Parts: sequence; structure tokens; C-alpha cells
Amino acid sequence: MTRPFVSLTTDFGLADPSVGICKGVILRIAPDAQIVDVSHAIHRQNPLEGAALLQVALPYLPTGVHVAVVDPGVGTERRPVAILTARGDHLVGPDNGLLVPGAEALGGIEACRELVDERYRLSPVSRTFHGRDIFAPAAAHLARGVALEEFGPAVDPGTLVRLELPAPRGMGGKLEATIVSLDAFGSAQLLANRADLERAIGTVEPGMRLSVEVGTTPAARCFEATWRRTYGEVTTGEALVLVDSYGRLAIAVNGGDAAQMHGLGSGQRVRLGRA
Amino acid sequence: MTRPFVSLTTDFGLADPSVGICKGVILRIAPDAQIVDVSHAIHRQNPLEGAALLQVALPYLPTGVHVAVVDPGVGTERRPVAILTARGDHLVGPDNGLLVPGAEALGGIEACRELVDERYRLSPVSRTFHGRDIFAPAAAHLARGVALEEFGPAVDPGTLVRLELPAPRGMGGKLEATIVSLDAFGSAQLLANRADLERAIGTVEPGMRLSVEVGTTPAARCFEATWRRTYGEVTTGEALVLVDSYGRLAIAVNGGDAAQMHGLGSGQRVRLGRA
Amino acid sequence: MTRPFVSLTTDFGLADPSVGICKGVILRIAPDAQIVDVSHAIHRQNPLEGAALLQVALPYLPTGVHVAVVDPGVGTERRPVAILTARGDHLVGPDNGLLVPGAEALGGIEACRELVDERYRLSPVSRTFHGRDIFAPAAAHLARGVALEEFGPAVDPGTLVRLELPAPRGMGGKLEATIVSLDAFGSAQLLANRADLERAIGTVEPGMRLSVEVGTTPAARCFEATWRRTYGEVTTGEALVLVDSYGRLAIAVNGGDAAQMHGLGSGQRVRLGRA
Repeated sequence: MTRPFVSLTTDFGLADPSVGICKGVILRIAPDAQIVDVSHAIHRQNPLEGAALLQVALPYLPTGVHVAVVDPGVGTERRPVAILTARGDHLVGPDNGLLVPGAEALGGIEACRELVDERYRLSPVSRTFHGRDIFAPAAAHLARGVALEEFGPAVDPGTLVRLELPAPRGMGGKLEATIVSLDAFGSAQLLANRADLERAIGTVEPGMRLSVEVGTTPAARCFEATWRRTYGEVTTGEALVLVDSYGRLAIAVNGGDAAQMHGLGSGQRVRLGRA
Repeated sequence: MTRPFVSLTTDFGLADPSVGICKGVILRIAPDAQIVDVSHAIHRQNPLEGAALLQVALPYLPTGVHVAVVDPGVGTERRPVAILTARGDHLVGPDNGLLVPGAEALGGIEACRELVDERYRLSPVSRTFHGRDIFAPAAAHLARGVALEEFGPAVDPGTLVRLELPAPRGMGGKLEATIVSLDAFGSAQLLANRADLERAIGTVEPGMRLSVEVGTTPAARCFEATWRRTYGEVTTGEALVLVDSYGRLAIAVNGGDAAQMHGLGSGQRVRLGRA
Repeated sequence: MTRPFVSLTTDFGLADPSVGICKGVILRIAPDAQIVDVSHAIHRQNPLEGAALLQVALPYLPTGVHVAVVDPGVGTERRPVAILTARGDHLVGPDNGLLVPGAEALGGIEACRELVDERYRLSPVSRTFHGRDIFAPAAAHLARGVALEEFGPAVDPGTLVRLELPAPRGMGGKLEATIVSLDAFGSAQLLANRADLERAIGTVEPGMRLSVEVGTTPAARCFEATWRRTYGEVTTGEALVLVDSYGRLAIAVNGGDAAQMHGLGSGQRVRLGRA
């Protein structure tokens, strides 16, 4: 019999024992759970970054329970929820927009419940660590087969908080898009794909030179980059724009750190045009 | 049948393969072990920080074998030990005080043995990596059911090294306490609880202003903070004092890094008073 | 029945979801796999460091499938391969030299195949993330028992790319060797062992003073260190040279960070002599 799968995505970091404690809480309730860390390095209290990450990561994971905690509102009135997706997963976390794009990437929201039943929480519930006291226990009970309806009242999916993932837009022959995250190599991922770019500036081909403008005028910085299919196609130290592993546009430097070299950061608007 | 549970708490970090190698050693002996990392970011060779962490973390973990290695004395004469707790756990590590507060949080010490039997060590035992050569194998053999008595001679619990967790004390209408750790958000955890604070300065209530004094006079720095129940109750950038997720007092900045903003560090003495 | 063992060694870091996604891909195919992280902190795109690490780490792991991805050539023409070792392990990764020293540490190469069969890859294969699209699926299919011959054409082991692990050499009464990695404590590991040192400078004994010369003349820096068996045998802050946990020579500072204090870095040549 397959072990139930549980994934964890948080802004807890790995320096303190928060993640280990959540895993302990899960395994006391569901000892056979197979737990995988997606990321604990979401920039603190940035649900948008977490939402964009879940959207691309969850389709690669087994069907199971996915806990996500990026929760500036812990201890205040936002609802704790569990969402059932069309693929059969449960997404568990705060109702602050974090979970919705991931649920849509798994086929859409089939049902949602508020996590209020005390049988499925630790007692007492602290005001500062709902990951441990509400979300981890709920995930574990879902993993061992407790029905979603047991956890609390139905939540109308239309009432769930939604984050606006900043859309790309074409303007004046350029594509403007938002940097949603930086990877370990300093590559900047944009909330836009190749089709968005080609709608704005026309067909792109390997070797084409692009201009990259970062920040708002008049303080904007500008540099050039080459459209490539992979890192190894440019010389070391050269900037490139490519379709990354998740189908999103990315700005990278072969063998270097694009974020550091060009001052790129999560949340910035970037304009791509023909050089 | 439930898989045996093993937790790991060390100062090894995750940059080199030490942690992965310990897990490999455990799984070669006990292939079904469920291993969870509590933390590998204890400040190097600071058993006091490790002991305080185990004290609050272990009660959330399943009953099992808990390995802890923060071991400035590796290769010298300190004893390697395994402790049986009243809850039924085994704590495995160096006899340098690291394990005792965690064992007490699990109901107290029932029995203790020195880890000397060569059947339950790797051979040869290196002088620099007892985590791999002594503690991981012992944990794995305990996890697969070897009786504690098999590992070596009984250790009188009264002879175990104990660390003095620096106690809070009231003085001149203030509470003086020690910062025991910083979390990923830069919040500073004190070795003191709300009752300690109220004994020193009287009842506290949400919104009350407190003075926080850090370091020793005359070079002490001072700032103000508000007593709150959770982070979201103050404006961004404002300092607060609250009861943290483990029942300890913590100094935090909502949406900011208290340690960085106010120069807080592990081991410092702090004085809290009415502002 | 024992769960199949899979280890992961990469330069992905833990900041983005790459590692979690690879684990998800593996567990969708082989739900019972026991996955262990060896390290995800190989310096980016440094296959030599990865190869040296696998060489010392793999012998401590259970027999199983070992995935390693340090792959500056992703998306270019280097072959993806799986190697069967004499111990019965499978090593999966790029044919860039990363896997060979580890395979030799596990008894040597018994067989090798190129990973081309589309049944054992994700579709489509991206140009930038073969860890997810080729190596993780291949590892999972090997873990669930698919025969190595199924994955693609035989590769003559003699045609595998080999990295030259820079050899130590004696010269003028000194031993010259290369720093291959730094551990979490700032200790520098050399690609040389005690026998190499004694061939160059004669028998060493605890307490003997050594000179350590770093970098190339005339800009070389020099400091002294003591030959010791373990860290605790010198006073805090004192430099030592010792045999580390893997049988390699290491330069360390007791209670300090040798790399920081003496400007040591991966890839540097170091000369050890009698002081």
C-alpha cells in the first residue's frame, strides 16, 4: 500500500526547528506519511512568491496533501482552509491567496472547508505558529483519510482571497513583466512566457539581441542580453534571456549571477525589447 | 507496522555531506527508519543553544530515537551516551549537557548507558566524526530494537554533565534574561516566560510599553517595544515583546529583523522593564 | 521488504524548489523510495568538487541509486548516463566526470548505459533542467527495478569523461596538494592523505609544527599549524593539520574558521612543510 504523500512549502527557513517540528506533528498523527520539502526559502511573508512557486511546482509532485505557510496574518482573522483539487490533492494553509494558483494548476478547486474542528488541531492553538498547531495536524489527518467535510464548514470558493499575479503587458514595442523569484544561480524568473514576449516584440530567435530595462525611469538601468535556448549557448559571463524549466521567461548570466550583476530583485518590473 | 522514528539535531550545517552520511549510516542498519531533521543550524559548538532547542522541540516529535551532536569535545574524553526517557524515547549524543533538558522535557531520565560496545559502532572510529561512527550507528541499532543494556555499562544519571541554562532574575523592577536563540525572522528567544516577567514588573497587558536594554552598562543599548499577543497587532517595523510559539518570551519586529535592527545575539543578557 | 534507496547530490541549493521537484518526480514513479540528500551545496557547476565528495560519501550510503547533478553542460551534447557499480549501485547523472570517482569507490564500473529511452524520461525534456526531466525519472525507474539495459545503448566505460583529481606531489621537502572543499566549520580538505605527506616531509607526530603556504609565489601567504589528531588537542584559535573524517588531510582552526582566517578556498594549491 502506498504511503500518503505530504509536501511542505513555507517561509520558515531551515535555521530554527520550525520545519522539523511540523514534520514531527505530522508523523505523530500519520506515521507512514512520505514528507517532501518543496521550499522553505520563500521570501518572508511574501505570499505572491509562494503562490507563483506552488503553481509551477505542484504538478510535478504526487497527488497528496500540500501544506503551504506564508502567513503575514498569523494570529489575526484570516481563515485557515483546506482545498480539494480536481486532481484529488488537498491544499492546506491560510486563506490569503497563497493556495489558489496551485489549486488551479492541479485542475481547479472542487471543494473547500475552513479548518475549525478542534479534533484536528493541537491544543492550545498558539497565536504565532499555526503551521504547527493547525496546518500540520490538518494535513496529517487528511493524509490518514479523514474526510474533508469533517474539518469545518464549507467555504464558497468564490469567497477565497485571490492574489493578483502581476500580468505581463506589451507597451511601445516592449514587454513589461514582473520578476517573481530568483533561483540559486541568481537567475530571475518573470511572470510571463514566450508567447507574451512574441506578442509584444515579434518572433524571437536564438542569437537575437534584447534590451533589458530594470526599475522605473528615470532611475532605470539597462543592459543587453541574447535570446538563447540554454545557458551553455553563450560565453561565460554573458547575459541571456531564455524559457526556463517551468515555461517562464528568465534572465540569466551563463556561469554568473544575473541578480547580483544587474541588481535584479523579486517584485521588480522589467521591460524587454529588441536591442 | 510503524516505521521507527529517528530525529537529528546538529551543528553540522547542510553545506557538506555530514548529515547525509549520518542518514546513510542509519539506513544501512535500519532501512525502515523514518528520519527527520530538527535543525542542523545550531551555532557551532554551542551545546547550550542545542539543549534549549531540544527542550522545546522534542515534545512535538514522535516517540523514537533522537540523535543530537553539538560536540566541541569530539575526540577527547567525554562519554558517548544513550538516555532512556520516561516517555520511551532514546536520546543519543555526547555527555556534555546537550541531552539532559530534552530528556527532562520527555518525562525525565529512566536509564542511561555509555556507548562502548564495538558491535554498535563503525570501525575504525575516527577522532573527528563521532556522529557518523558512534551516534548514528547506535541510534540505528536502538531503532531496530537492540536493548539499551547491550551498548555498554550503566551510567548513573547523577553523573551526567549538566549545563546551567542561565536563569531569568528580577532586579530593580526589571527582568534580566538571556537570549538563547534567534529564529529565521530575526526574533530573539529569551530563556524566560511570561510568569517570570510578571513576577518582576507586574501584570502585562496588550499595548503596554516596555523598555528593552541589551548588553552591559555603560555600553548598553536601549529601545522600546510593545507587549503584544502576535506579530500582526503592531505596525510594520515596530518592535514587540510576546510569548512565542514555545511559551518563551521573544523580542521581535513586525515585518523586520529584530536581531539586525537592535544588535541582538545569542548569549546576550537583556533587561525588560516598564517604559 | 526494504524500500529502494535513492541519494541526491547537486549544486541546486535549497532556495528554489528544484530539489523538491526532483523528489516529487521520483516519488510519482517509485512511491516507496527512501530519498536522502547528500549535499545540494556543491559550488555551482564545479563537477570536480562533486566528484571528490561522492568518492568519500557514497561508501557510507546503502546500496541503491545515487543521482548526481553538477552539470555546466546541461542542454548541450554531453551524454546522460547510468553506471552500474561492482557493489550493485546505480549512479545517474551527466557524463562529465562527476560520477566516475564515486563509482570507483563502490568497487568500480560494471556497466554503463546512455539514458535515451523516452519511456523513462519526462516529456517534453527541457533544455535547462535534466535533473527533473531525465535523471530523476531514470533513478526512479531503476529504483523500482527496471533493468539498466532498457534505458539505452551500452556506453564503453573507457569512453566516459574523466576529471583529473589534482594529485598531490612532493617537491623540495614539501607536499603540494589541492584544496577540494571547505566544510561548514571553515576547515579545508586537501586531495592528499597522511601517507602522501610523510613521503614528502617524513614521519609526522602530534605536536610537530608545520608551515602552510597558500597560493602562488610571490603573492603566497604563509602561516604555521600543528599536526594533531583532533581539534580539541590545540587551544582555541590555533591552526592545526589533521587527518579528517574521510582520511584526507585537512587544515583547521580549533573553534575558528580556517578558510576565513587564512584566505583558503576551493581549488587553491597549498604547500605543507616542516616549520
